[in-house]
Amino acid sequence: MQSFQDLIAQFSQHFNQQHFPEQPRKLYDAASHILGIGGKRIRPVLCLMGNELFDALRPDALEVGSAIELFHNFTLVHDDIMDKAPLRRGKPTVHKVYGDPAAILAGDVMLINVYERLNKVQAHYKQKIISVFNKAAIEVCEGQQLDMDFESVDPETVQYDDYVNMIGLKTSVLLAASLQLGAIIGGAGEGNQQHLYNFGKNVGIAFQIQDDYLDAFGDPEKFGKQQGGDILVNKKTFLLLKAFELCNAAQKAELIRLMETSPANKVERVLELFRACKVDEWAEKEKERFTQLAFQSLDHIAVLSSRKAPLMDLANYLLNRQQ
Amino acid sequence: MQSFQDLIAQFSQHFNQQHFPEQPRKLYDAASHILGIGGKRIRPVLCLMGNELFDALRPDALEVGSAIELFHNFTLVHDDIMDKAPLRRGKPTVHKVYGDPAAILAGDVMLINVYERLNKVQAHYKQKIISVFNKAAIEVCEGQQLDMDFESVDPETVQYDDYVNMIGLKTSVLLAASLQLGAIIGGAGEGNQQHLYNFGKNVGIAFQIQDDYLDAFGDPEKFGKQQGGDILVNKKTFLLLKAFELCNAAQKAELIRLMETSPANKVERVLELFRACKVDEWAEKEKERFTQLAFQSLDHIAVLSSRKAPLMDLANYLLNRQQ
Repeated sequence: MQSFQDLIAQFSQHFNQQHFPEQPRKLYDAASHILGIGGKRIRPVLCLMGNELFDALRPDALEVGSAIELFHNFTLVHDDIMDKAPLRRGKPTVHKVYGDPAAILAGDVMLINVYERLNKVQAHYKQKIISVFNKAAIEVCEGQQLDMDFESVDPETVQYDDYVNMIGLKTSVLLAASLQLGAIIGGAGEGNQQHLYNFGKNVGIAFQIQDDYLDAFGDPEKFGKQQGGDILVNKKTFLLLKAFELCNAAQKAELIRLMETSPANKVERVLELFRACKVDEWAEKEKERFTQLAFQSLDHIAVLSSRKAPLMDLANYLLNRQQ
Repeated sequence: MQSFQDLIAQFSQHFNQQHFPEQPRKLYDAASHILGIGGKRIRPVLCLMGNELFDALRPDALEVGSAIELFHNFTLVHDDIMDKAPLRRGKPTVHKVYGDPAAILAGDVMLINVYERLNKVQAHYKQKIISVFNKAAIEVCEGQQLDMDFESVDPETVQYDDYVNMIGLKTSVLLAASLQLGAIIGGAGEGNQQHLYNFGKNVGIAFQIQDDYLDAFGDPEKFGKQQGGDILVNKKTFLLLKAFELCNAAQKAELIRLMETSPANKVERVLELFRACKVDEWAEKEKERFTQLAFQSLDHIAVLSSRKAPLMDLANYLLNRQQ
């Protein structure tokens, strides 16, 4: 059993190689571009950890981890086209460099490559691996559509539960499925697989609440982003949606006016409103609630608690960052 | 063993159903839209015929046929975005009705659904089925990229062999793989699978040459398209590329001028040039050459020739149309 830092290093060594042939050049340069932008490789490492929770690390976990990371990068390429995003991690997005057609096609060929990887796993659990993966993959697409649908509606009309559902699909099910896929490779039974899935899903939601909180209230120097970036673009976040629930009528009217007029001190005044209706306190409690749900699921997994230590470390690392 | 017309009916009955859940509505309406536009369902029927060439029809052939048809429709959705095509079969394309983001995502979710279908086949040949399918799927993407690359270069500089390779990838490998996938389900050996694949690939290229020929020289009333539609938009076709090889310097200069200036009688004058340098005769011979290659491959398949009759009928039907 290895720490998550060790597993990140091990996965990166496996994954950081040439994934595609040379020709047609534009197609495969576009696909390689997104992989070159990098990332924390959290999802494949969750797959390795899911495996190691139940048994020694198997080569299949590296294959499935690679498939998951390719899938995640495929979603980034296509989402960036849909969102017309010019930058990712400070670098130009694939469609900005290669144009929309090559970026669409690069995503497609990456998605097909995902299944080349999944097709390599042992026959006795291949059906289950592809089935669990596909369920998550479809949900990620559904989450992206729901997210785009939300963008065009009035924030007052978004139901909180619908928003949590969307965030769960868009960002958490792939984390959860990564753990479950590793557990399948490690030989876990259905019950343990499900507890681990629930752990991942709730960690993902808690992480998103924290992400929204830090964007608004975090120290911009430590967080590395402009404070209130979400507020500036009227992004629907946990905080904004809950504010509409907690605010009184006058505060609501003020919030809507700030969103519509975007005055120079918009961020400052929205944050004042958030504090006045205690959205900041609510967010800390809500993150804690999902964190507790996650750890309860981890408790239920029937392996020695010492085996769970790396997963607890990773969850604490992800959910206690100040930056 | 059934005629290809019977198999089209049988497949349509299996395939014409609700493929997707209801929500998120926009995503799945977009995906259903392309399936509603219809088509001849030639590829899945090739899969059924590949199966029946070697053994009685198995349910897996209907699953794999459905996967192939979903994949084909996924490529249409994404290609139409890349080509900015407003119409397909006279109906508005998916991105025209639902916008680019939902169309990209609908294609993605269709591609994932392809593998849900493939994941249902019997375990003993699942690895082979997914592997043969993926090879073709990747080649289709590569063909689309090469096609887009060709569009931006001077027609004089395109090598004929490179063009045949591109057409083979873009349009023929999926026909070929459809037959091979059926053959695998029917229990064919590697050699027979390969002969059947080659049959499909060469029929596909012969069909494309015929398609280009009919666009230029066909009876527009029977063909159902505007005569010379390809010529009007300077599309790189078998005829145009070969004309640049067969024409003398004066004819070449005239052809380039016609392409650059698009006079009112452009189609008529390009056709005159094509006839003058005998591109029409060449195309008929070239189609015949690929047809012969196809039938030679069919000859090599080690089953009773009576079993090959439906495939010969289909090839003759596809390659002898006047419309």
